[in-house]
Parts: sequence; C-alpha cells; structure tokens
Amino acid sequence: MTDQEYMLRAIQLAKKGEGWTNPNPMVGAVIVKDGRIIGEGYHKKCGELHAERNAIASLTESAEGATIYVTLEPCCHYGKTPPCTEAIIEQKIKKVVIGSRDPNPKVAGKGAQILRESGITVVQDFMREECDCLNPVFFHYITTKTPYVVMKYAMTLDGKIATKTGASKWITGEPARQEVQHMRHRYMGIMAGIGTVLADDPMLNVRVEGWKSPVRIVCDSSLRIPLDSQIVRSAKEYRTIVAYAGREENEEITEKIERLHAKGVDTVCCPDEKGQIDLKKLMTYLGNEGIDSILLEGGGTLNDSALRAGIVKEVHCFIAPKLFGGKNSKTPVQGIGIGLPSEALKLKCTDICRIGEDIRIICQVCEKEQEGPCLQES
Amino acid sequence: MTDQEYMLRAIQLAKKGEGWTNPNPMVGAVIVKDGRIIGEGYHKKCGELHAERNAIASLTESAEGATIYVTLEPCCHYGKTPPCTEAIIEQKIKKVVIGSRDPNPKVAGKGAQILRESGITVVQDFMREECDCLNPVFFHYITTKTPYVVMKYAMTLDGKIATKTGASKWITGEPARQEVQHMRHRYMGIMAGIGTVLADDPMLNVRVEGWKSPVRIVCDSSLRIPLDSQIVRSAKEYRTIVAYAGREENEEITEKIERLHAKGVDTVCCPDEKGQIDLKKLMTYLGNEGIDSILLEGGGTLNDSALRAGIVKEVHCFIAPKLFGGKNSKTPVQGIGIGLPSEALKLKCTDICRIGEDIRIICQVCEKEQEGPCLQES
Repeated sequence: MTDQEYMLRAIQLAKKGEGWTNPNPMVGAVIVKDGRIIGEGYHKKCGELHAERNAIASLTESAEGATIYVTLEPCCHYGKTPPCTEAIIEQKIKKVVIGSRDPNPKVAGKGAQILRESGITVVQDFMREECDCLNPVFFHYITTKTPYVVMKYAMTLDGKIATKTGASKWITGEPARQEVQHMRHRYMGIMAGIGTVLADDPMLNVRVEGWKSPVRIVCDSSLRIPLDSQIVRSAKEYRTIVAYAGREENEEITEKIERLHAKGVDTVCCPDEKGQIDLKKLMTYLGNEGIDSILLEGGGTLNDSALRAGIVKEVHCFIAPKLFGGKNSKTPVQGIGIGLPSEALKLKCTDICRIGEDIRIICQVCEKEQEGPCLQES
Repeated sequence: MTDQEYMLRAIQLAKKGEGWTNPNPMVGAVIVKDGRIIGEGYHKKCGELHAERNAIASLTESAEGATIYVTLEPCCHYGKTPPCTEAIIEQKIKKVVIGSRDPNPKVAGKGAQILRESGITVVQDFMREECDCLNPVFFHYITTKTPYVVMKYAMTLDGKIATKTGASKWITGEPARQEVQHMRHRYMGIMAGIGTVLADDPMLNVRVEGWKSPVRIVCDSSLRIPLDSQIVRSAKEYRTIVAYAGREENEEITEKIERLHAKGVDTVCCPDEKGQIDLKKLMTYLGNEGIDSILLEGGGTLNDSALRAGIVKEVHCFIAPKLFGGKNSKTPVQGIGIGLPSEALKLKCTDICRIGEDIRIICQVCEKEQEGPCLQES
C-alpha cells in the first residue's frame, strides 16, 4: 500500500465517527510498520479517546519505529484527554504523516513542533484538501464559536417547496428523504420556523436506528407554538429550544414560557430592533450551548431571514423531477427579494448527484469581503 | 474498426446536419469494404440528397460487395429525391446495417424488405437506441404532424426566473446562454408570450455565425404587440407568426392585423372558448406550416398554459448557483397551480450536466395514458 492509501484508510475510519464526535472533529489514524497496518482507530465520540490513542490501543505489536498516518495534527494540550503527542512519543513511533492543520492559527504547528523536537520525522499537509473536507463544521465552529448552518430544501423542477395550499408531502422520493434523515444525524441541531410547526406539526427527529436525533430549535417570534404540538410533547425526550423575540414583562408570554419550561422546552429571547428574532445573536447563544452545526429546514420566510442574517454556509437543494406550477405556490426563499439580478447572493456549486429519481445540488455560500453573505435589498 | 465503431461514425456524421435537415431527420451513412471506409455521407439539408446517396457520391472505389451502415432505414419511396433502396441495389452493396426503423408504422420495414428481395443481407435495430436519440423531433412530427415542443428556462437555485421587478438579465453565464443560442438553431421555431415581448423587446434570433435563426412565434391573445417592437421591425428578415384569440370582426383588430401584415408578420387566430389562445390548435396550424419543433422560451404564464395544453415534450432547465429570494419574484411555471403534491406533473430526468458555472437538467414529460400531459387543477 502507498502513503496515499494509508491516509485514505485513515479518512475512511474518521468518517465512522460522523454525527457522534461533535463538537469535536472526525479524525482517523493508521499505524504502519514494515508495510503492514499494525493498528488503526478513530475518534468515536466527544469525550472519548482521540484517534491516535485508539489506534495505539489496537496495536498488535510494538509501534517502535512505525509510521502513523493521522488526518488532523495531533493535539498537544490537556483537554478531556491527555495530549496525543505524548502517546506518540511514548510509543517510539518514528514518523508522523499529518493531513489537516490544527484550525486554531495560534496553536497550529505546535503538535508537529513537539514531535519534531523529540526526533520524530513529521510530514505536514499530506492530502490536506481531502482531510480538510472531513471537518468544515469543526473548522468553522472552533474559529467562530457559532454553528455551521446548512440550509436544506426539497423543491420541484419549477422551484416550488409546497403547493398553494402549503402541502409538501412528498416532493422527493424515499432515498432523498432517507438522506435528509442522515443529515439530521450528522448535524447537532435542526432549526425550523413556527410556520412549519403550525402547518405540519413535525417531530424533526431521526427515525432510523443507530442514528441520533438533533437538538430541535424553533424560531417563534411571538411564542405561538402549541403546548400540545408533537415537538413540545416530546421535549423531555429530545432537547428542544424555542427562540422568541417578545419581552418577558408581558404576563401572557411569561406564563407561556413557564408552561413550556414545565414541559422540558428551553426558551431563549433574541429580539432585534424590529421585534423579530435576531438570528446572529441566536447563533452566538447556540454556539455557547455547544451546538456546532445546524440543519436549517425552514420555509421560505425563515430561509430568507437566515440568508439576510448571513448565517448560512451551505445550501443543499434536492430537486424532484416534477412540476407544481402556481403563482402562489411556496418557493425556497421568499421575503422581499432583490431587485436586480446582479444583487443575487452568489453560491459555488461543489457537488451534483442523483439520489433515486431526484437530484441533489450542494453549494457553498460565497462570503463577501466585509460582512457575512446576505440578500441585499434594492 | 468494429460494427459499433462504423455505426458511431454514421451517428457522428448525422449530427452534422443538426438544425438544417428539419423537418427531415438527421441521418448518417458509412460504406465499408475490406475493413476500410470507402465512402461516407449525411443528410445535409431538407430537399437535398439523403445520407446514403451522399455516401455513394463520395465513393473512392466500387462499392460492389461492400457493407453500408445507416442510422435510419433507407427510404423506398419517391419524395423530393428518388428512393435510396434503388441506389444501394444499383451499387451492388451486399449488406445493409440499419439503426432506427422508419417511424411510420405503415411503411416501417418496407425498405428493408425491398433490399432483402434483391438478395442483400439486412441487419435491423443495430444500436437502435443510440440512433433513435438522433431524431425525437422527427419521430414525433412524422406521426403527429404537430411540433415537438421543448420548454426552456433559466432559474436560480431558489427557483426564480426573474426578480420581483421582472429583471432577468442575466441569470446564467455566457456558456449556458451560448447553449441556448444553439437550441434556437436546432429547433425550427421559437415561441414566447406577449409579456416577454413587452418586458424585454427581444429579437429571439440567433447571433452566432453559421447557425440559423428560428421562426418566431408570439402568443398575444389581444394583439398587443407594438408595431415598433424589434420583432415586428425585423419580420421581413426573420419569419414571424403572431397568434391571437380575438375576433376578426373587431375593427381595431382588423386594422392592427393589416398593419402587421404590411410589416411582414403572419397572424393566426386560435381562440379557445375562454377567449385565450388554444395552444393545441396553434400547434396543428404550425405543424401544417412545416414547423416540426419549437423552443418555448415563455414566462411562467405561457409555460403554465403550454403544460396544461399538453403540448410540452421536454423540459430544459438551466440552474444558476445563486439566490434571488422574494415572495413576488417570478417562477418558471405560474398560473393556478396544483393543490396536492400527488397531482404534480411527472417528469423523467434524462440528463444532468454542468455548463460553465451553471447546471442543466433535461427531463422528458411523462405521458398520461388517455390525454396529453397537463397540470391538473384541484
């Protein structure tokens, strides 16, 4: 096997942690001696051993003189677990091949430096691009302390996410809907607007065994969420946060909040100057709560607000080969909209694939130089 | 070279006639002797020699004992040119390999039969699927005598074909717009609604040297088209047909029609019972005029009418990686729209590709059993 193949194996291992490591990164490690893999491991879950220590724990023989391939620079500080650099040095490993750099520019390179100072050969940036692709969420969260927001919607080929009556079950087929279940597992939070809750009374959970459900976040400016909605009734089972924009002085609101708390719902007040929810503030709050990523399953209004607030990093658009028609059918991004095509929010398409009979297009939101990306009014 | 490679060469040759052969099919032919191509040709233009005769005309030596590969069953009747079967027999060709069958079920197989009766070996349905892909327009037109309608639109990833102000220049990039120019060359007619003419004052022609411009068809129920619009002013240069739904008794209409005729515009009255244009009747009229194919570059209203009338066969959707937002932005199919997702018009996706930074999705409209496809009202 080549160096590339060992690193690809480490990447493959890293992915096994998908959905479980957050807010930690996915990391994989492979230990090779005399052309044989003698140990391998990955970071399985936040709070548990790092990939390097799992690989060492799996060793079938001494790692003295071996090479370790690791998708992310080994840590050199005491966190929930002791530094991985220490374990590598103890094992008398003689070479470390690293994919991604530590995303924190202040500590990046320190792990590599400590290893070098112990006489270990260190190769950095090996297949860095491939390794970086594992952890866009981690890189974003560790540097901004706000969640990485992925906007997801399913539309027809004529751009409709619901008919004029608001009906949207179903637009895409079973394989695409299964992929959405997997996205809910992969990201820590799921966010929807009160419109969706009132229209569909959804659970916003994951219904696949072996996958975890996300923290549910509902944007509900005036706290209209029904106490008997499925989300409120299941809040003791799945963590649920309702964001609102009212003032707590209001007696009615205070009472509603108490009732929601009694049912296990957390609430957070994030008003902007217009009495709407300030989504940027909400992201700061959710980041502090340890939520590193959010799947935004909004309707056209919430999607518009999120884009204007500049919090969206990726767009996952599922397209079904069918047409709804209708001037009053719902579209993925509503609100006021722009006046001139040149004012459009630009995206960069990074993946197109078929999922069953449907098509999925993944785009990154192109950042503006000064502020976050947003839809300009004209 | 293998049989497959000879037929692929014939297909490649056939495509050179794209845009010029209508309403005839694109056909290519290759003559092979002792493992060498000794002649090849294609149908260049309606009214000129068929592919087989062009291949024979190019012969560098006697075709006695040779094999001819031809993408469509050779004709056996006198049309604008004498039957190709005759020429093949005269040349003492000993084997004919045929791709597509004659689309007319009443005559299909007769060409092959005549050849066989002359002692020639005939192979039918060879790479038939690949050959059939050359001529969906011809197969449709020859059997229905109505044009093959391709609906084309360019939209953002959030399903908008124009901003709330109606601005749509430009949504896609240069390579996608160039592809649309090629579509205008490929199909015989181009159809737009009066809304587009009033908003954009377009030419609807082809601005690329070596490609031809289509016949322009404007759907204009109440004959609102301005006499000083670019389309009317250029009607002596490019054939132009304005369809309307008024009654000729009306004096104002009669006068407008006279003025349009004086400027070289053809008019056709196709009213339905609601006073709108009956698109099915219009298609029959255009088919009789020899127009075998139409590129529909409509707005949301005309697109909706065309889908409801069941005249659309294909949808070509160009998607730009950008977002406009806006509840009142324009979408590709407007009108009343359906009520339930299950009533959607179903499509079959046949191609997805990137064109520059944009994405093109091609779908076929799935036919219903009884009537043509349409968007149901609920």
